[in-house]
Amino acid sequence: MSRSSKPTLSDVAARAGVAATTASYILNGRTLEMRISSDTEARVNQAALELGYRPNRTAQSLRTASTRIIGVVTDYVAGGMFSARILAGANAAARAQDHVLMIGETDGDQGVMTDLVHEFVDRQVDGLLFVTRTTSSIKLPKGLEGTRVVTVNCVDRSTKYPSVLPDDHGGGRRAAEAILSIGVRDDIVVVGQSPTSEALASARIAGLEEGLRDAGAQIAARLDCPWNLDDAYDALAGWLEAGGRPKVVVCLNDRIAWGVYHALADIPLAVPGEVSVISFDGSELGRWMRPTLASVALPFFEMGEEAVRILLDPQADEPVVMEMPLLGGDSLRSVARAGSVAP
Amino acid sequence: MSRSSKPTLSDVAARAGVAATTASYILNGRTLEMRISSDTEARVNQAALELGYRPNRTAQSLRTASTRIIGVVTDYVAGGMFSARILAGANAAARAQDHVLMIGETDGDQGVMTDLVHEFVDRQVDGLLFVTRTTSSIKLPKGLEGTRVVTVNCVDRSTKYPSVLPDDHGGGRRAAEAILSIGVRDDIVVVGQSPTSEALASARIAGLEEGLRDAGAQIAARLDCPWNLDDAYDALAGWLEAGGRPKVVVCLNDRIAWGVYHALADIPLAVPGEVSVISFDGSELGRWMRPTLASVALPFFEMGEEAVRILLDPQADEPVVMEMPLLGGDSLRSVARAGSVAP
Repeated sequence: MSRSSKPTLSDVAARAGVAATTASYILNGRTLEMRISSDTEARVNQAALELGYRPNRTAQSLRTASTRIIGVVTDYVAGGMFSARILAGANAAARAQDHVLMIGETDGDQGVMTDLVHEFVDRQVDGLLFVTRTTSSIKLPKGLEGTRVVTVNCVDRSTKYPSVLPDDHGGGRRAAEAILSIGVRDDIVVVGQSPTSEALASARIAGLEEGLRDAGAQIAARLDCPWNLDDAYDALAGWLEAGGRPKVVVCLNDRIAWGVYHALADIPLAVPGEVSVISFDGSELGRWMRPTLASVALPFFEMGEEAVRILLDPQADEPVVMEMPLLGGDSLRSVARAGSVAP
Repeated sequence: MSRSSKPTLSDVAARAGVAATTASYILNGRTLEMRISSDTEARVNQAALELGYRPNRTAQSLRTASTRIIGVVTDYVAGGMFSARILAGANAAARAQDHVLMIGETDGDQGVMTDLVHEFVDRQVDGLLFVTRTTSSIKLPKGLEGTRVVTVNCVDRSTKYPSVLPDDHGGGRRAAEAILSIGVRDDIVVVGQSPTSEALASARIAGLEEGLRDAGAQIAARLDCPWNLDDAYDALAGWLEAGGRPKVVVCLNDRIAWGVYHALADIPLAVPGEVSVISFDGSELGRWMRPTLASVALPFFEMGEEAVRILLDPQADEPVVMEMPLLGGDSLRSVARAGSVAP
């Protein structure tokens, strides 16, 4: 290797003691396809690392290159506005590592998922992310042997692949802490009990209940409804009309919180003067509300970033559970302050 | 062709007077690759149509099949929450025609766009959609010869390809009509004058101005701001503090309308009792506001559907400009009604 120039493929091959063609296959991500041993691969990668070898992107033909493409199979791109943050995070991380995302949408159809997987595998993507809008269990199709896979916001039933999930149980406990911290122990109403996604809702509610129970507090009412504005409005408005009066309303997502705000305004009950509201999602929409919404945040952007990090790191194989932080908002107020001017 | 069974590839080939292999290439989208004449292609397609031939999807190998994939190159999947409706519409239309979308995100980077295009073309997608979040002019990379292309919400500078655009000028006129219909001719304020996307904003504003001018009405103030909640809030709040009092506030998108509602509530000025508000987008967010927002709608879902229809129809080559309908809302009220009980 000459001193003044960048290390070449031949330099790497010579250092690793392999043919240049072999080194090329390995550095272009075709190790499996060319049935090269993992020992040889490790040797070549080590040599490339030591020499600081960087492949010339522009000289790579599309046919022979590591594709630098991460395939994404997701149930809805356009339907889940907020969950698209996962894709934004994945995209940011992919770009930072000189990859591009290519996204296929299944629309929830298992047959389409299978087609997309074959398509991506056939095209030798550098890895596949499976992303769902709501936390759920999925069934991956066959044919993924030899492909790096990470599931995001979902778990494959085989549990063979690393997953990135939000810590919904911890998030539920965080909501409980926030409620206790403002001095409320009763008249707590949960809106959205009936789960869109059972696993997710049950972990959130379990964490919430545990956290409250540990402090001798409890949930007074659970209002079932689908997770959207109109149904949440109807559920809470009906309960308020029947004479219910909450100290805190817990909303299982930020869309529900919109319906809750409107139902409280109809009575009217002032937020946070008379009723505090806490939610889950931490979406941009909560920032738009007045008062701004306190919400336990789904770290979707960070989950997408983390998933790509794991996907591109052959050593990373552990599932990751990501903390759900409380995003502060003006919708929570201490009962002491609301009820009197005493400290 | 036997009476009781479905038409086969051989039936189609026989009727068209070509070899079965040729018919197979054509019906699997490899006409160009195999250098088959367009006459032969037309004959085979006609025969397939007349016989009602449908390829057996499960028997198609991925290598030899028409890929049934529509490539989408878009600037932001996750950034433009509302514009993702274009992808939803495209996906619905693609599914209806037994295709899947595969989406690549450029993050606004021309180099990434070029990579994605090569990637898609190399993989023989059945066509390529170029989709932008805001209406704009784009520069498509080379190498698209022989690939069906439709631009959605954008126009390629070469204007070689059919495009699907919203009729922003007509939308502006529609907003003017709505304002005139409630009896307002002055004290009209436009928020968001400074364009995120010049072409789009100027067409909207030109249409609005024309419509008002034709009726002897005019815009009283134009408040510059980026198209988001906080900047719109600041812009209008500053103007109101300086003593400005509008009869109608025109918001150049629904995010601006949020900031406008908050600024009006601070004074307070009641919507629609004291001030009417009209916006552009027709997004779901406007439905969540109280009062609900009157908004001239970008028909994004329909634009996506239309784009796929054009893409998969070899005869369709005309640009399409899609009407922006007024989505009614409670934020507009007639001045007569607001000012008195007289009819």
